[in-house]
Amino acid sequence: METTHIEHIGIAVRNLQKSIDFYEDVLGLKCYNIEEVADQKVRTAFFMAGQTKIELLESTSGDGPVAKFLEKRGEGVHHIAFAVKGVEESLAHARSKGVQTIDQQPRRGAEGLDIAFLHPKSTFGVLTELCEDKNR
Amino acid sequence: METTHIEHIGIAVRNLQKSIDFYEDVLGLKCYNIEEVADQKVRTAFFMAGQTKIELLESTSGDGPVAKFLEKRGEGVHHIAFAVKGVEESLAHARSKGVQTIDQQPRRGAEGLDIAFLHPKSTFGVLTELCEDKNR
Repeated sequence: METTHIEHIGIAVRNLQKSIDFYEDVLGLKCYNIEEVADQKVRTAFFMAGQTKIELLESTSGDGPVAKFLEKRGEGVHHIAFAVKGVEESLAHARSKGVQTIDQQPRRGAEGLDIAFLHPKSTFGVLTELCEDKNR
Repeated sequence: METTHIEHIGIAVRNLQKSIDFYEDVLGLKCYNIEEVADQKVRTAFFMAGQTKIELLESTSGDGPVAKFLEKRGEGVHHIAFAVKGVEESLAHARSKGVQTIDQQPRRGAEGLDIAFLHPKSTFGVLTELCEDKNR
């Protein structure tokens, strides 16, 4: 697997606007996009920090994955997304190494990326996303 | 505050070597340094992923901050470190915005960086580090 950089860090928050204010007013980052991802039941806000995005995740439903995360662990880092060359091959490589994966094949995520998740049981506690922007 | 990029992501792990194996064999990153930070009671392993480091943290003591984190939350992301221009001014700016800080002034961290932590109560659940490499 060839990992080029950290594409984004997903952070679960209870209140999107209050969290946006922190990243803008305290850290000096600029929110450049707010997007709802219906199938994940989240509203997301994006910031660039160098080559890595911060993706704030607010649940739009009481039974979505981010709602469950917040209930269990509270606010905090939800996942790390690594940009890889060849997401299908990278997912197959991970599985060949015995890593449990959430996705059996890549699917379309926010911002048009092809994405696949590895299970935190196999990744030492960090929900790990592999992603590739095929439009680049 | 001017945040230039994400300097590193700190990840609490129970077994440094097993975790290193995952980041090397599965994600294809290369561990370039293992360093003990005595005052934090951790052994750390570093990888570069683009301009951001992954810093794995294994506790060297049952009563250190990472040991406590593992006991409370289990393995996972421990903190995010943002590279800023002027860590003293950035810390003062955060305090002026009402952010609770762990450090009253910057101190020396791993790899010779000047660092200061903001309290996760004020940062929406993410233990947030500000850091600056004054040797650059």
